[in-house]
Amino acid sequence: MSPHKHDASLKAIDLSHHLNSKSKARHPSPLKDIIRFMAVENMVTLAGGLPHPSLFPIYDATISISNPSKTGEMKLSLSNEQTDTPLSSFLQYGTSAGNAKLRQWCEEFTKRVHMPLYEDFETLLHTGNTNAWSKVVGLLCEEGDYILCESHIYPSAQAYWIPQGNLAAPVALDEQGIRDDALEQILRNWEITHPGVNRPHVLYLVSVGSNPTGVTMGTERRQRIYDICVKFDVIIVEDDPYFFLQYPEYSMGNQVEGQVISNEKFLASLVPSFLRFDYQGRVIRLESLSKTVAPGLRLGYFVANSLFTERLLRASEVETQDPSGMSQALVYGLMQQWGTEGYLTWLQTIRIEYQTRRDWIIKAFAKQFTLKPAAEVPEISSSEGIAALIGSVPIFSFVPPTGGMFIWTTFYLNQNPNFKKLQLDSAIEDPEQLFGHTLWENLAEELVLLTPGSYYYPWQGKDKVTTKARGAEPEIVNLRFSFSMATMEEMELGVARLAKVVKSSWQLE
Amino acid sequence: MSPHKHDASLKAIDLSHHLNSKSKARHPSPLKDIIRFMAVENMVTLAGGLPHPSLFPIYDATISISNPSKTGEMKLSLSNEQTDTPLSSFLQYGTSAGNAKLRQWCEEFTKRVHMPLYEDFETLLHTGNTNAWSKVVGLLCEEGDYILCESHIYPSAQAYWIPQGNLAAPVALDEQGIRDDALEQILRNWEITHPGVNRPHVLYLVSVGSNPTGVTMGTERRQRIYDICVKFDVIIVEDDPYFFLQYPEYSMGNQVEGQVISNEKFLASLVPSFLRFDYQGRVIRLESLSKTVAPGLRLGYFVANSLFTERLLRASEVETQDPSGMSQALVYGLMQQWGTEGYLTWLQTIRIEYQTRRDWIIKAFAKQFTLKPAAEVPEISSSEGIAALIGSVPIFSFVPPTGGMFIWTTFYLNQNPNFKKLQLDSAIEDPEQLFGHTLWENLAEELVLLTPGSYYYPWQGKDKVTTKARGAEPEIVNLRFSFSMATMEEMELGVARLAKVVKSSWQLE
Repeated sequence: MSPHKHDASLKAIDLSHHLNSKSKARHPSPLKDIIRFMAVENMVTLAGGLPHPSLFPIYDATISISNPSKTGEMKLSLSNEQTDTPLSSFLQYGTSAGNAKLRQWCEEFTKRVHMPLYEDFETLLHTGNTNAWSKVVGLLCEEGDYILCESHIYPSAQAYWIPQGNLAAPVALDEQGIRDDALEQILRNWEITHPGVNRPHVLYLVSVGSNPTGVTMGTERRQRIYDICVKFDVIIVEDDPYFFLQYPEYSMGNQVEGQVISNEKFLASLVPSFLRFDYQGRVIRLESLSKTVAPGLRLGYFVANSLFTERLLRASEVETQDPSGMSQALVYGLMQQWGTEGYLTWLQTIRIEYQTRRDWIIKAFAKQFTLKPAAEVPEISSSEGIAALIGSVPIFSFVPPTGGMFIWTTFYLNQNPNFKKLQLDSAIEDPEQLFGHTLWENLAEELVLLTPGSYYYPWQGKDKVTTKARGAEPEIVNLRFSFSMATMEEMELGVARLAKVVKSSWQLE
Repeated sequence: MSPHKHDASLKAIDLSHHLNSKSKARHPSPLKDIIRFMAVENMVTLAGGLPHPSLFPIYDATISISNPSKTGEMKLSLSNEQTDTPLSSFLQYGTSAGNAKLRQWCEEFTKRVHMPLYEDFETLLHTGNTNAWSKVVGLLCEEGDYILCESHIYPSAQAYWIPQGNLAAPVALDEQGIRDDALEQILRNWEITHPGVNRPHVLYLVSVGSNPTGVTMGTERRQRIYDICVKFDVIIVEDDPYFFLQYPEYSMGNQVEGQVISNEKFLASLVPSFLRFDYQGRVIRLESLSKTVAPGLRLGYFVANSLFTERLLRASEVETQDPSGMSQALVYGLMQQWGTEGYLTWLQTIRIEYQTRRDWIIKAFAKQFTLKPAAEVPEISSSEGIAALIGSVPIFSFVPPTGGMFIWTTFYLNQNPNFKKLQLDSAIEDPEQLFGHTLWENLAEELVLLTPGSYYYPWQGKDKVTTKARGAEPEIVNLRFSFSMATMEEMELGVARLAKVVKSSWQLE
């Protein structure tokens, strides 16, 4: 099948048939002619409409930053004395692709971390993964197209496409994310299940620490998913903000504290990106700095084949231009000051912090519920990870995440008397949804705020919003827990409040 | 007609019929429910997926900024010790509307400068006017709609809408920008000229120092245009990056150096924005900081009625989120440090700088050409401002700009023997376009780079690209001069090179 080793001679294949009509219709930038002449020696240019840099009121900046290798601070200086990348060049209009040196850094970092199989990939700055995904939909999807996605999906991703008539084609999940058998079945049967409708050609997924399900896809699964995408000519969009927040398996009652290791070992410990399997250039990576540096920077980058980056650049020119120059200057400065090794060490540091927080919340669960491997609980499938019981009643289950910031819980309602009453009431169309909303509201009233599972339903049209119509699993509801922000004490308090609400609702007191 | 004085009781009328179908179809943000509970006291929140602010590697920044009231610098400090707006709050995810305090400043500044007639206008941050305009098209225009615009138009503005099948409905210009009689005629005759096609309901214009034409619309013209837009139910989109770069009339041979005056006098000297006439809420202002602070910040704001800002916010949530927090922190800090009075003084300072540069380039013209009021040259309409002649041959004309960064020149070809030859060649479909391109290229080869007028042709479809098919004035070509970047010496050298090329092409040696 696909080659596994880096082969410098591999080039992206022609994937231009994936571009949508709007993207194909973008005119080339009219500035090309002018730019060609701008570089000519002794040219007097009266062409550009740039403000004069002497009239920028910002001269230089000294910024205190963390020191990745030891506690304490470092200083980062941004000024016009850095002659190769003066601050004024970041304050001026940029090319919409972003600062060339920063893009170069992105490219080198991509090679170091992801070792893409094919040679002619490119990087292009964007203003964060929300923006990046909207540009990818604008690149590939015709209005009304179905988009392959996880069966629980990050709501902002589909909020962009819903108004333009796109629909989700959700792929069933397990503890590794989307299932390759489910993906293949959807694609193989498409003409039968959706006669006359274009087969989906875009797969959107968060393959590490998925939002909301928290699961991470392993190496073999990735290979199988990639091969199916080759077979059915599907573009894979890997939205990957949590890539560096990968943790060792959670082992009950036996937690090990995270430790900084060599950067080589750190990188080797991470599941490979889809880029490692991509010998055709059909993977678009959306790289984010939001979880590893700061979300307020609104800065990330695409990694994709050069045909796609060229069209994405045309879109950037008229939709956003490049990200904030202050953000670019800061990130470029950070990477110069730290070096790539320093940055990788920084990434290890924050990975350890979030791993600790993951362990806190599971410990908080263990204080209020009896935790058992799901395999030992007959009512629950073993792929559900860990079951949380009160007495012998399984209340919820979760897969302990090996990445990201979220724990996705599935609550089992078949032993809940209040739910049973709703089920018997023929006037209630969707007892799961009603119960789920009430449970969430009861929790909020008891002062523990979670995110309701209903936020993450894939949009399949107005006729497919109830649990039954969506073909979703009956007698369950989901809640998402985030472990990124709360203290250990807050988690314990929150989970105690949850246990109180559960006992009351399940009538277990 | 419309009221001219501020009346606090005026409210925006219902303009919801202007929203396009995509904009209407945007779902309300699902986070509202959660946000309602977040503010509850003692809430343990495990809902948000925010990275922990203690893991942002940026602690504080000290920035040298200019001092508007005298030469020398000031220091601006951004840190977490500013408890109402700590730096970490700008580094975190924001609401897509932008920082509340910065928006508050935008609102107060709008009141101070523009004195909007109606009360319930709102401000919303955006990532620069390129982005803002793309969002306004996404708010109001259906695919295929015609958009009213100046008959020479900023290319990026239409590059956004061309791929989605929108077309320009260009309005004829004079020395004040679009003509009200031309606008009224287009709208009144629309059903006759475009049977079965929706009448345009969006007018896009740069009404101060227009790009490319450099002209500024006066008060009376604005009133007439506004009243026509009320009559025909048109939304006015005022893209106004050069508003504060307004200059006194150029008086030949009698230049006065700009001087800092009181801020009240400064504001009173500026032509009023369309907001001053807008008693219905049908004006959308695109406010930019690119020419007054720095373009690299990628930060500006909308001023519009609250119905439009709400829908624009929904788009921002899924397309961009808010502008870079570093840019927001910097601009908010600048405005706090300077105060609004200091900022207005800063604006005066840069206005004077660009006024000086405008005078430089006209002086450079005067060194090489004989400048005369166009009214004194029989071949040229008096609305063309100033004519530049060699001997008795009128070569080009221009309206000395009272705003912005550009001089738009019209070259007269009817005495150019090379052009005459092209005209006689029946194999040449568009002699103006061919001559214009050759002239521009000859200039670049002589080492003076200008922007060709062809960049600014409004897009009216593939069948309307030649001079004749567009119904454009024959026997002329345009070139745009920018005076923002070059030194006086460079301008003189560039114009000398222009004169050389002209003499050769017109055979005047």
